[in-house]
This record gives sequence, C-alpha cells and structure tokens, in this order.
Amino acid sequence: MSERSTQYSIGLDFGTNSVRAVVVDVADGAIVGGSVFNYPHGDMGVVTDPADPNLARQHPADYLAGIEQTVTAALMDAGDDVAARVVGIGVDTTGSTPIPVDGSGEALALHDRFCDNPNAMGWLWKDHTAYREAAEITAAAGESHPEYLAKCGGTYSSEWFWAKLLKCARTDSDVFTAAASWVELADWIPAVLTGTTALDRVKRCICAAGHKAMFNPAWGGYPAADFIASFDGGVLTHVRDSLPSEAVTIADRVGTLTAAWATKLGLPEGIPVAGGAFDAHLGGVGSGIKPGTMVKVIGTSTCDLAVAPLDSDLPDIPGLCGVVPESILPGNYGIEAGQSAVGDIFNWYVHKLQPGGMDHKQLDDAAAAMKPGESGLLALDWNNGNRTVLVDQQLTGLVMGLTLHSSPAEIFRALVEATAFGARMIRDRMVEYGVPIDRVINCGGISIKSPMLMQIYADVFNCPMLVSASDQTCALGSAMAGAVVAGVYADFEQAADAMTRIRDKQYAPIPENVALYERLFGLYKRLHDLFGTREYGANQFEVMKELIAIREEQRG
Amino acid sequence: MSERSTQYSIGLDFGTNSVRAVVVDVADGAIVGGSVFNYPHGDMGVVTDPADPNLARQHPADYLAGIEQTVTAALMDAGDDVAARVVGIGVDTTGSTPIPVDGSGEALALHDRFCDNPNAMGWLWKDHTAYREAAEITAAAGESHPEYLAKCGGTYSSEWFWAKLLKCARTDSDVFTAAASWVELADWIPAVLTGTTALDRVKRCICAAGHKAMFNPAWGGYPAADFIASFDGGVLTHVRDSLPSEAVTIADRVGTLTAAWATKLGLPEGIPVAGGAFDAHLGGVGSGIKPGTMVKVIGTSTCDLAVAPLDSDLPDIPGLCGVVPESILPGNYGIEAGQSAVGDIFNWYVHKLQPGGMDHKQLDDAAAAMKPGESGLLALDWNNGNRTVLVDQQLTGLVMGLTLHSSPAEIFRALVEATAFGARMIRDRMVEYGVPIDRVINCGGISIKSPMLMQIYADVFNCPMLVSASDQTCALGSAMAGAVVAGVYADFEQAADAMTRIRDKQYAPIPENVALYERLFGLYKRLHDLFGTREYGANQFEVMKELIAIREEQRG
Repeated sequence: MSERSTQYSIGLDFGTNSVRAVVVDVADGAIVGGSVFNYPHGDMGVVTDPADPNLARQHPADYLAGIEQTVTAALMDAGDDVAARVVGIGVDTTGSTPIPVDGSGEALALHDRFCDNPNAMGWLWKDHTAYREAAEITAAAGESHPEYLAKCGGTYSSEWFWAKLLKCARTDSDVFTAAASWVELADWIPAVLTGTTALDRVKRCICAAGHKAMFNPAWGGYPAADFIASFDGGVLTHVRDSLPSEAVTIADRVGTLTAAWATKLGLPEGIPVAGGAFDAHLGGVGSGIKPGTMVKVIGTSTCDLAVAPLDSDLPDIPGLCGVVPESILPGNYGIEAGQSAVGDIFNWYVHKLQPGGMDHKQLDDAAAAMKPGESGLLALDWNNGNRTVLVDQQLTGLVMGLTLHSSPAEIFRALVEATAFGARMIRDRMVEYGVPIDRVINCGGISIKSPMLMQIYADVFNCPMLVSASDQTCALGSAMAGAVVAGVYADFEQAADAMTRIRDKQYAPIPENVALYERLFGLYKRLHDLFGTREYGANQFEVMKELIAIREEQRG
Repeated sequence: MSERSTQYSIGLDFGTNSVRAVVVDVADGAIVGGSVFNYPHGDMGVVTDPADPNLARQHPADYLAGIEQTVTAALMDAGDDVAARVVGIGVDTTGSTPIPVDGSGEALALHDRFCDNPNAMGWLWKDHTAYREAAEITAAAGESHPEYLAKCGGTYSSEWFWAKLLKCARTDSDVFTAAASWVELADWIPAVLTGTTALDRVKRCICAAGHKAMFNPAWGGYPAADFIASFDGGVLTHVRDSLPSEAVTIADRVGTLTAAWATKLGLPEGIPVAGGAFDAHLGGVGSGIKPGTMVKVIGTSTCDLAVAPLDSDLPDIPGLCGVVPESILPGNYGIEAGQSAVGDIFNWYVHKLQPGGMDHKQLDDAAAAMKPGESGLLALDWNNGNRTVLVDQQLTGLVMGLTLHSSPAEIFRALVEATAFGARMIRDRMVEYGVPIDRVINCGGISIKSPMLMQIYADVFNCPMLVSASDQTCALGSAMAGAVVAGVYADFEQAADAMTRIRDKQYAPIPENVALYERLFGLYKRLHDLFGTREYGANQFEVMKELIAIREEQRG
C-alpha cells in the first residue's frame, strides 16, 4: 500500500470519566493520533447526589464538547493531511446509559429548563437508583415472560434501561413527561453525528437493546406492549411505542457525517458512521474476537466476551449477562459475562487497606515470588457481589486460611487467585453450554501491567493467556467499525486480520502449578457453592445475606 | 492494723521472657515493691534452634539468677524494714515446662557437661518438638485409658510433660539417661528455695501434674505404670517410678526458706514457701476467683478459668483443656480453657498487616466509634487454631463480608468481635455442663487498655465485664499463696476478700447491642460449626484442612 492511498478511521470511545478519540491507519490498525477529554461536570464526569450513593448521571453537554475536542485534537496529533483521508467513524460507549430526549431527539438536559436536573441527564451505567424497579421487572418477567430473563442471565438489573425509565417515571414526572423517548448513549452519539436523532429516524443498536432492554428478534424485538403496559398503569407505553422493531449492528451505517459536524471537526462531509456498541464489546472486536476466541477485558471489573455462529444450536446459559444475536460480532451470537470487581478489589486492597505501606508494584513483585498454595490462603472475589455466574449482588468477599504469619503480599496473591478462579467459573460455564473457546485474549491495563496475574490466570485456566497488542482496544474496535462501514473491509474477520494483533509475550501454563491450582479451584468452588448457592443448604447460603441485612439495618 | 504489725508476702512470677518479684502488703494486697529480670539466655530468654521452629527452651541458670536479682531489688524498691517482715513466698511459672534433673534434683543444664545442650534445659511450654509423641500418647490413651483424655479436653498436647519426655528419650539419650527425673518449673522453684529438690522430697503440684501429666486422684495419681511402660519399651518407667502418688496445692507449704537462700535474699530464714502453680491459675487467684466467678486472663492468648466446689457433680466437659481437683483453688475443681490467640491476632493485624499505617490505638479508637454489625464483617478467631472448644490446631482465621469499602478499623473491630464470640463459646460450654458462672472478671493488659474490647465482650456475653484492679494478678496470686501458707489467712476466700479488688470502671451490656450481637453470634456459630466440626458435612469441615495440607506440601 503506497503512502498516498493511506486511509484512516476514527474511533470514539466514551468512558465513565472521559471520552477518547483515536485516528487509526486502516491498513494495520496503528493508532496515529489520539486525544482524551475529561468530562467537566460533576465528580470526574459523574454527577452524584450526596444524599443517594446509588445515583450516577452524566451531562450530555460533556459528550458533545468531548467529540469536538477529542476529534480535532486527535487529528492534530496525527499530523497534516490525515483529516482528509478519514473514511469512517465508529463509536463505543458505556451502557446501559439511557438519555431522556424530546421529540427531535435533543437531550432534555440541553434545554435550559432541565440543564441542572440530574434526572434529565444520561443515567450512567453504574446508577443503581432503580434497584426496586429492577426487582419488580424481574418478578413480572419471571411470571409472564421467563424468556426475557433467560437471555439476560435470569435477573433484570438496576443498571438497565427499563428499570431506570420506571424509576424516573416514579420520581420525576416533569422529566418523564417531557421525554418523548429515551435513547442509549451508544445510539445517541451516532445519531447526533449523522443528524438522525429524530425519533422516527434514530437507530437502536442490538448491543444495547439486546443486552439491556430485553430486545430479541426471537420475540420480534422489544418486550411485548402488554408487558411494558403492566407497570404503573402503562406509564412506559409511549416510550415502548417510540422504539423500532429492528436493531442495527456495528456493520451497519446509521448515516453519514453531517455538514455541520464535518465543518466543526475538520472531516470530510458524508463519511459513514457505524452503529454504536458498548465499549467492552468493541474491546472484544479490537482484540480480534471470533468463534473460539474468548476476550477478557480486565479493568476495575471485567467483561468476558465470546461469540458463536448464528447457526449454532446455542441454549440459554444460566447466569450469563446475555446471549444476543450480533451484539458483539455481526453474524454471531454475542455472549457476555463478567466479574463485578477485579481491579477494584486490588485497588481496595492497595489504597483502602494499605497493608504494610506497600504500593501496588511492591505487592505484585512480592506475590510473584510465591508458590501457589504456599500461603494456605483462599479468597472469594465477591467484594462487589457476583455478576456471573451467580448474578447476585448480595454477596461479599472472604479470605480464609489466615494465620499469625499471613503477610500483605500473601493476601494480595490470594485476591489475585480469587479473581482467576472467578474468571474460570465463567469460562467453564460457557464451555459447558457449548460456546467454543480454544484461546483466550486479554486486554485492559492489568493484563499488560501484571505478568504475575497473567501467569496465574494461565495456570488456573490451564491454557495460554494471550494479550492484545493494543492498549486501546475499545477505541480500536470502534475504528474497525468505521473501516468496515466505509467498505475498506468486507467484514470484521478481514478487518481483524489486518488491524488487530496479539503481543509476543504469551503466558503458557506451568504444569505443576496447573495441578496445584486444580486442587485450590476445587476448594474455591466448594466455598462458591456454599455461600453462593443453596446446594449445601439454606443455613450456609444465608450467612452472607444476613450479614448484609444486619449491616443495612445498622446503617439505617 | 498498726504500722508496726504490717506484714508482707513475696510473689515470684516466672514468665516466658522474664521473672518478676513483687512485695505485697498482706493486709490489702498493695504492691509495695517490685522488680523484673529479663532472662539473659537465647532470644529474649528463649533458647531456639534456627533449624527447628518448634524448639523453645530455657536455661535454669536464668531462673536462679532471676530469683536473687528480683527479690533483692523488689525489697529495695519496697523500702527499709520490709524484708524482715516478709512472712511467706508464693511462686507461679509457665508450664508445662519440665526440667531434667539429676538424683539430687539439680538441673542437668547446671552441670558443665550439659550447660549448652538445649535438651538438658527447661522445655518451655511453647516447645512443640514433641508433636508426634503427643499424637501417639493421645492415640494410646484413647485405646486403653480414655479417662486420661477426658480430663484434658480429649487431646494430649505436644506442649505437655510426657510428650516432651518421650521426645527427649528418642532424640538425646545422653540427656535422657542422665536425668533421674523431670521436674516442672512450678515445682522446681519452691523445691530450690526450700532445699527439697532431692527426688524423694520434691513436691509435685496438682496444677502441673493434673493439667499436663494426666495426674488425677480418681485413678490414684499419675497414669498407670503399664500405660507409661507401653512407650518405647518402657523408656519412661524410671521417671514414672520417681513420681509421688500425692500432689500439693497452693495452700500447702512445700517447706521453709533455707538459710543459704535467706542470706542471699536478705529474708528471714524459715519463712514458708507455698506449692507452685501456673501463672494464669494464680492470675485467677489474684483476681479473686471463686465458685460463680469466671476469670479471663487476656494476653497474647487467653486462659479462661472457673472453679466449682469439690462436692459438685461435675461431668467431663468436652473440649476443655482440663478439669482438675484443686488445680486453681483449694477445695474446688479447677476448670481451664483458653483461646489460642487473642492479643496475638491484634498484634498480627497491627504489626504484620499494618493496615492503613494505623497504630493499635488509632485502630482501637476508630473501631470504638462504630456500631455493631454496621461493617457487615464477620471473622473467625482461629489464626492460631482453636484450643477450646474445638481443640484443633488445624484451623485458620477467616474474614467474611468484605466489600470495596471495608476499612482497616472495620476489619480490626471484626477481629475483636471474633475473639469475643470465641470467648463466649467457652463460657457457654462451661455453663452448659454445670459450671456456675454469674460474673466475669478480666485481667491482663488488654482488659485495662481497651475499653472498646471490654464493652464488646460485655455486649456479646450479655453480662457485665469486671476488671481486676491489679495489673500484676499472677504475682499477686502468688503472694496470696505466701500469705496463706504463712497463716495470715485461714484460706483463699479470706485472702481474696482482703487482698483482691475489682476496678471501679465496669462495662455493663448495652441492650440494643446485646440483641444485635446475639444475631451475629448465631452467624459466628454457624461458621464455627461449618469449618470446625463435621456437623454440616465433611466437605465443609475439610476445606481448612486441605488448605493447610496444600500449604505444608508447598513449603516442603
């Protein structure tokens, strides 16, 4: 490929605290320019309420400012003559992050009337105000439409679309009445860029709709009108009526860049914009996910992704966050699971407990020098509950095997091992239900920074741990979507072959460690089933629940 | 009582690292002079072996030097004219700490030939080299003499007399052959002071003999000759033959101070010396133990003591370290239990884990400000195994309920609560088997230093926690024995009325905390039975065992 023909794609990656833009060479996936914009509103971009720790919102104005700032800066970073050769744009975002909008698709918080009202802003993925509504939706679906739950792991979450809408309807009728509809951030950004925000034009992506709003082609799209109408005398009906019966994938163009945005960003007018998706899903794409390849996006929590061809005979998989056609990779079922806390557990241990005055690296180094099992410690990775496979937030962390000699680094290693065992539970569950997995690619900061952790994962999984070459796999995945909708590649398989790579450094399982960890994993599973299931009896299962109940009572 | 008639008693308290002498006014128990001598040999008085962490010995020369140094210094501290009015001496020591002696009762390590041989020294209570021998003795007694085990909690310990002798017989025949007999430190000191070390004269106290050497009047004293002869072709028989069939209590004079020692110490010749006992037992006496009063000696571990009149119909109590007639208070059964680690758990947490860079006091203060249960944490106090009621060293500590917000002080409080729950298991077990307990007196540094801990104990026990006025209850108890054998008091009840007091500051249970802790204790008991018994099935019981087995394998 000659210098002149070089083409670029832009990936926009909307995270929890900031948005990132990257400019990517479509030939090899090299990031030639990038920029990050920290959301100015609230606490590091998150609007909170001191009176309600469950509340987490984001101001849509930050998204718009972020697009302009990061794209122009990333293009400048990329150098001269690059902007003109950008051929497409892809977008990934957090989610479920629904935004209430007016009839034209304008976010309500952009109206003067609502500009300071958190209920009119984006309801960030980690907003948990709707926990009662989620429980009601779970109960109602369990009664009348168990199939809705079967595709989302058996429990509808307070983090998700319908629960948040119902919560808003019950607590802020001003906002709820003013909202002609609600649009996921992953859909709103592509619609804004392509001038398709009007309710009859805005496309809804299968990723958000399928994983968070109970959309599935199997039952003709969103949940049945009578099911939605059953809550609060039909208060959600107008939103349900505003939703389309079809959804788009990241291989679909939602439209082309408007003249106004092209001018603002210095990009060619009319370049295609791909359907949006969640950040972790596009992280999977940017890591080269395909049938047989599991991608673990390891951050504060994890997102564990796999795909299986649409013609596979895939059953519902109990305890998985979702199995949705084409939600990750077009042509494949998208299978999503995750651990509620991984990096967050290490951060808690290092920064909140601060054991021995050791920093993260000192603990990591000391833990790396230890042999599996020699500390006698065993932990459960449930400090933030268990997303997969137990789908239970009412669980807590545990450390066992403590003596008068247990050291800070030994406990740290036990916590790392606990996350490895939790990760293996997920892999094993997928394999048990027929998801093909013959290699595992990791991405995210921890996978790059901690060879100790990667080696333990290889030993616990008894398979090599590969690490994605890019340290911006989400944004790279978005840029790949931009390249595909621009027609540079016929499909994501071709795009992945050209644009994704794994690092030379791989982690092979060490046989004696594998054997040892097999035994420790057996003990982990015993504790897992003891406190996480009713298998050993209610007496045991209820210990953690009762502790939490007492805690909540005492906190008032 | 006029100034002229003031009388004094001396208490000698032989600890793990030092010996203390106090001079006590027999009228009111006031300590008018005191002195401490740190044993010069080994590591803070403990002779160790880098190749064997189980080994812990003490040089008898340190004991002799310690008597002279501390008594003369304590008398000087007490002031003029005190020495001449000393009317008696009492002695408490660690134990089981048996010393090999020659036919005249001289400690072998005082011979030039053996002066550097650890096997010829005192085998300190915490020496665990004889763990295999202890298991053999337990197994053999279980076969032929289950009654021996019933009086010592069901398991013969590696810390005890016969196990240590058998270990010596197997590993150092020079020493073992040279030893005409073995004498507990608690018996050797009174014998030395009274010139009665010769084997036909040395008195053996019921406290050491009953709790550590399977002595019981019920079967005529020490274990049957054929039982002792069954080990290693009768290697222990000559020791068994050297032992008397009767034992003394702290109310018995073992003799009177020799002229030589009187001169050396500046004391009147011929004053009586009481039978010895273990430090914690005399701590109970110094705290005013009597039927209905439990005394908790809280240190790095605890000793939990109670007594019941000899005419009570007391059954064997499963899981208790020992029930021995007159071992604590003459005229009563002595009942001994204990937690393997209490202060040691806090010391581990503060000094080894060093969470949050907080010192003991900062953690204590922060924990004191919390409400029961509000952390959601629950711990097991098994970092050093469980002495009572499970009698199982193959157990480990556990912390449950951890979240991403759990703080250093919250975990500290959970550890304190765990020790309270463990303490309550002991109290409840005693009460269940008919030991009268209607008040609890605490002594030891922690009971004075941590009102937070004392309040939690009061709330968990649902009874007031009293604290002994003296901060030297062991030495005070010894001095009381000196006063009783001098005839100042007719018995220990009178001595206690005059010489012991409790502090004004008492800890009353707080009703709402009592109710809350009742629930948490229920959860503690569930975990206790889950991992500490087979009640919920072997699968659970074996988790901690298997972790320890793996740990030992990996450490090689």
